[in-house]
Amino acid sequence: MDEMKKRETLILEWMKELGKDIVKNKDEAMEIEEKTSFNDLVTNMDKSVEKELTSRIRENFPTDRIVGEEGYGDDVDTLDGTIWFLDPIDGTLNFVKQRENFALMVGVFVDGVGELAAVYDVMRDKLYSARKGDGIRCNGQTLEKPESLPLSEGLLATSSVLMVNEENAYVRELGRQSMGVRALGSAGLEVVEVAKGNVVAYMARNLKPWDIAPGVVFMEELGMKATQFDGSELDMLSSNHAVFGTEPAHKEIVNSHNSQ
Amino acid sequence: MDEMKKRETLILEWMKELGKDIVKNKDEAMEIEEKTSFNDLVTNMDKSVEKELTSRIRENFPTDRIVGEEGYGDDVDTLDGTIWFLDPIDGTLNFVKQRENFALMVGVFVDGVGELAAVYDVMRDKLYSARKGDGIRCNGQTLEKPESLPLSEGLLATSSVLMVNEENAYVRELGRQSMGVRALGSAGLEVVEVAKGNVVAYMARNLKPWDIAPGVVFMEELGMKATQFDGSELDMLSSNHAVFGTEPAHKEIVNSHNSQ
Repeated sequence: MDEMKKRETLILEWMKELGKDIVKNKDEAMEIEEKTSFNDLVTNMDKSVEKELTSRIRENFPTDRIVGEEGYGDDVDTLDGTIWFLDPIDGTLNFVKQRENFALMVGVFVDGVGELAAVYDVMRDKLYSARKGDGIRCNGQTLEKPESLPLSEGLLATSSVLMVNEENAYVRELGRQSMGVRALGSAGLEVVEVAKGNVVAYMARNLKPWDIAPGVVFMEELGMKATQFDGSELDMLSSNHAVFGTEPAHKEIVNSHNSQ
Repeated sequence: MDEMKKRETLILEWMKELGKDIVKNKDEAMEIEEKTSFNDLVTNMDKSVEKELTSRIRENFPTDRIVGEEGYGDDVDTLDGTIWFLDPIDGTLNFVKQRENFALMVGVFVDGVGELAAVYDVMRDKLYSARKGDGIRCNGQTLEKPESLPLSEGLLATSSVLMVNEENAYVRELGRQSMGVRALGSAGLEVVEVAKGNVVAYMARNLKPWDIAPGVVFMEELGMKATQFDGSELDMLSSNHAVFGTEPAHKEIVNSHNSQ
């Protein structure tokens, strides 16, 4: 079995297993800490899931490097070699407040190119995964490529921050050009919405490499777009204002951003 | 068996049965028409579900009156007697574009007072229901009353229109006071989010009686609030700018609206 196939098989097993632990323990008393602000949270569950994944990856793939949201990975400042991007609970605020609508996310890149991705909607037991060149699946079943629709024929997913901040008038205008806006509060689940064709695009500011890694792979597999708001390439070592979408919706968003 | 109990038993059975039909037929070619604008849609499925419910209600409760979104009900201009409010597919745009995130909704009022309510999240097979004085259930299991949290300790659900229109700056400010905004695109599912405590409030403009009927009953059962944005009573014969929420979040929204 080649090494990437082994990574795929193991990570999908581990995600299902850790998802079961999350479901089992989610109603226990939780330790919640604020990170940068009152709505940027981390729980003991985020930490324990990342620790566990990190330790299994190190055991099985000792030369791979790891970039994890909670900091149990490595200090990574180049994209050389095989890098795992881990987000143990994407949508921690939903996890804390709703006990649903969060995801466990993993992406694997080799020399800066996305090779593997998985987003696990834990509470609905739906595991979306992709391997470069092999399409995208939900619980093993291949998803169809969505229609390549413009904003006027689809829904636009966006973030709470983009919706509530006054300065983003062009995003509200994009919302008015679309059939409607949607906001779930999880970059992982929202990129899945794009991949399923439920929305024609998703845009959000300040997404970290672990937030965007699966989306990059999913879009590539579906012939869809993933860039910064200005159309430039995403940076897997930094923070990104990222848009994922169909070719026409992506173009409308980038043009609108650049002509502000 | 008293008549209201009979209504409850039958409607919950019918909703499950019609939900199965929707799931079975949802991938068939659909007839889609625009109602008032390019994002206000109706499908043959909305119509056939409402027709079917209307005919069963008439057969079993011949003196009851019916107010249905698609117009198969009666001309109702008083709230006297027993009135059924029917929304065969709430979130038709989601139904058309996503084939999920829509709900089948029913409310029964007697002399203007909410007695029965049900919201069926068809694709997730979750039927939320309430009977006056008997609490609220999901698939028969009683839901706990959510904590009575203010905006600063919870999420705010709102509509696409409120988010994208420039004139609603106070709604964006409310969003900034909250931990984040969420938008699902279905009044029925969003009022369920309030009832579950997933969000502390939901607010949307121009909601029709069939959009708000279940929410009115749910909030009453949970000791939560349901009014117009200005704090005045909801009108079950007209269109409403409606807010549903915990007592503190509701008060913050009404105060903010009224001090614009």
